[in-house]
Amino acid sequence: MFEKFIQKEKPFIEEKLFFYLDSLKIPGVLYEAMKYSLSAGGKRIRPFLAIAVSQLLNKKKEVVMPYACALEFIHTYSLMHDDLPALDDDDIRRGQLSSHKVFGEDIAVLAGDAFNTDAFSILFEHGKGNFQQGAGYLAKAGGGRGMVLGQIEDCTVPEKERTVDILNSINLLKTAKLLMASTAGTALWLDSGKESVAALEKYGLNLGLAFQITDDILDIASSTEEFGKTVGSDASSNKVTYPLLVGLERAEEKAYDFSKKAVAELGAFNDSEWKDVLVELAEYAVRRKK
Amino acid sequence: MFEKFIQKEKPFIEEKLFFYLDSLKIPGVLYEAMKYSLSAGGKRIRPFLAIAVSQLLNKKKEVVMPYACALEFIHTYSLMHDDLPALDDDDIRRGQLSSHKVFGEDIAVLAGDAFNTDAFSILFEHGKGNFQQGAGYLAKAGGGRGMVLGQIEDCTVPEKERTVDILNSINLLKTAKLLMASTAGTALWLDSGKESVAALEKYGLNLGLAFQITDDILDIASSTEEFGKTVGSDASSNKVTYPLLVGLERAEEKAYDFSKKAVAELGAFNDSEWKDVLVELAEYAVRRKK
Repeated sequence: MFEKFIQKEKPFIEEKLFFYLDSLKIPGVLYEAMKYSLSAGGKRIRPFLAIAVSQLLNKKKEVVMPYACALEFIHTYSLMHDDLPALDDDDIRRGQLSSHKVFGEDIAVLAGDAFNTDAFSILFEHGKGNFQQGAGYLAKAGGGRGMVLGQIEDCTVPEKERTVDILNSINLLKTAKLLMASTAGTALWLDSGKESVAALEKYGLNLGLAFQITDDILDIASSTEEFGKTVGSDASSNKVTYPLLVGLERAEEKAYDFSKKAVAELGAFNDSEWKDVLVELAEYAVRRKK
Repeated sequence: MFEKFIQKEKPFIEEKLFFYLDSLKIPGVLYEAMKYSLSAGGKRIRPFLAIAVSQLLNKKKEVVMPYACALEFIHTYSLMHDDLPALDDDDIRRGQLSSHKVFGEDIAVLAGDAFNTDAFSILFEHGKGNFQQGAGYLAKAGGGRGMVLGQIEDCTVPEKERTVDILNSINLLKTAKLLMASTAGTALWLDSGKESVAALEKYGLNLGLAFQITDDILDIASSTEEFGKTVGSDASSNKVTYPLLVGLERAEEKAYDFSKKAVAELGAFNDSEWKDVLVELAEYAVRRKK
């Protein structure tokens, strides 16, 4: 059911992503570079989560689309900068050349910067009523206390010092924070109550940890073709990831454990079609093959 | 008088910059890298402008300090990314080693990213009442329709195609937009009327153009020691700047012209001590030696 729902929403999500990008009226090569990276596809999990939360909370999905778009802008810029030669030095992203290979490093840095700032442009221009808390949640999750701090830890913690606790911390910051913004941040954007926000925050946290461990497992197990990025790019740079540290089997167990915890948090909500979708998404996070 | 005022405000500005940086509770090397670049000094023109505008409009300066801080965060990240090897490749910034020389390129990219995002964290966390318009003005001025677009044009417009009009466009986007955010954006943050905002916007625009042309003149004329960055770094990379295109004398005339236009816009405000300060700042923009 989850696949059906995400397939159904994807054209709507992408229409909105380009609607908001185009609304900025950015000209020339900067627009081309932003469009290229935003077009690269991917699962659009973050905007999809925002829509799912809006439906779970019985709100109109149109209302969350500026926020959903800001989430994808922040995610997109982080991939563009992460692929730079000075960081992960990846030439391939989602099965196509990464931004710096097509447009050059200077443009890749700057187009990423534009996505970062203009995520907030979109929020300021379309935020209504009590939008401040949800937008602030995204800024906190994306910046130096969240995703960027995770990137820094990933760049600087020596491989031999990495324990399961340290990997959990990196995964929390690098991956889960933005998923928490996609769930709890969306609920705040919709001015929802504390209990809903708290449950969705823990759902996003556990979903993020499950996703990241599964990514690391797939990075070892799958081929370039299947996974859409240079396989073993983390392993070949001697990065210690979850499966390398505890073995494939225990890593899979751990991912399933986080997935189950995510599902359990949904007990806070009444049964509905979209609650089932969120349950399935947490299950999909660990059973996907790419 | 202007120098006296800026000297008097500078310790207050810097206390607030580090207060807001520290309020984020960012740990480790990310904090060190952010602190290093924020400590590098500079004239703190943007926060000073925000304070000057608050005083011109008879508001408490405390109220604009989160916004003043966000302006300096955005300015600081732009310098950090601009200095990267893939962009201007400058090893020296404000008389000290640039971020990527001290912390490495990866950290310089990421610490810049954190400043960009967390500028907005500060605004969301401290914005009161109708803060949305002022904060949105900053995001628009900083992103792909403003400063970043100016950087892109500066990276991509071939030197031989650069006319005075094109240089004006680059200077407007790269430099003036953030000064317009410092003046008009601050007025919006303070929920001021349209006329004040419009006059301050044109003041910031002309001040920015005057500043940038003077920077280009000084880049040619002064020594490294005096100017605090590698002299001729633009010229040595064969960059066509204003004085190279029209000659030093006409460039100086043009800078004075923009300065006078800036001053003229202040006619919209009643006489006051702080109006005089803004007049002097526009004059300082073109007569400074560094």
